[in-house]
Amino acid sequence: MKKSALGAMVCPVARALDVVGDGWTLMIVRELFLGSRRFDDITAQTGMSPHLLSVRLRKLVDAEILHKRPYQQRPARYEYRLTAKGRDLWPVVIALKHWGGRWGEWPDGPPLRLRHSGCGAVADPVLVCPDCGEPVDALGMAAELGPAMAAERALKARGAIALVG
Amino acid sequence: MKKSALGAMVCPVARALDVVGDGWTLMIVRELFLGSRRFDDITAQTGMSPHLLSVRLRKLVDAEILHKRPYQQRPARYEYRLTAKGRDLWPVVIALKHWGGRWGEWPDGPPLRLRHSGCGAVADPVLVCPDCGEPVDALGMAAELGPAMAAERALKARGAIALVG
Repeated sequence: MKKSALGAMVCPVARALDVVGDGWTLMIVRELFLGSRRFDDITAQTGMSPHLLSVRLRKLVDAEILHKRPYQQRPARYEYRLTAKGRDLWPVVIALKHWGGRWGEWPDGPPLRLRHSGCGAVADPVLVCPDCGEPVDALGMAAELGPAMAAERALKARGAIALVG
Repeated sequence: MKKSALGAMVCPVARALDVVGDGWTLMIVRELFLGSRRFDDITAQTGMSPHLLSVRLRKLVDAEILHKRPYQQRPARYEYRLTAKGRDLWPVVIALKHWGGRWGEWPDGPPLRLRHSGCGAVADPVLVCPDCGEPVDALGMAAELGPAMAAERALKARGAIALVG
């Protein structure tokens, strides 16, 4: 994937995918939500090679999704934590969790469940309209394009922009 | 990415990423939510090459996220539509849209907004606990692992499983 092609589009989904649209990147974020912080723990749980993990971690630190701080001096060792921007990826991970749980095959039973600390209920969160509180889905929410995104899409429909060769 | 490594894990996020954890795959899903159905329209709007798009569309049809049907006979032309499994990816796309909109830079104003047809409000959906109705985030929801996922993670923590070389 040419990252710059996604990063150049006037679309928030494209821009988000330019940063986190890679399975291993989101697996690192998942692992931090599950409580791992150290390089060796993330390697063990994701199954990534140290090289692959180093490259992705650096990208996530550069994107200000993770921050890195030393937890040991000699030899130097670092741990990784989600920033506010990183914690804000929780709905993405939860949506993937829900979809994978619903459409995957789980012969040994559900792989994990979520418990709401506030009320004690075991359930996946649901999306609601913040105004009326009703549950929403694709059919009930209409996308209204702003001028810049509408203009870009009109140019593309006429074949005037081709981002990937 | 070795798809089989993610697909083999006892984790719904890993299994989901094995199918849709690729920026271009989710961009195709985004494009169908925006109303495109035809190959040429998806090519134009995503900027993907016809070859790259063909490969991803076949994968999405095989995964039962899209179905393909003819809209013209001579020459044969097909359109693509989201299945129920595909429409269920809407929360993933919406979560990416929200994150990209919030953390991206949009000098020309918000690229798009969502309107709830039910009540007319313009707002992004929010995640709430289905039991008590309160908004939830990472800090308020605890993950409780089922036996199979807990066992796999314990093995990995001891270095007994290494999925990617």
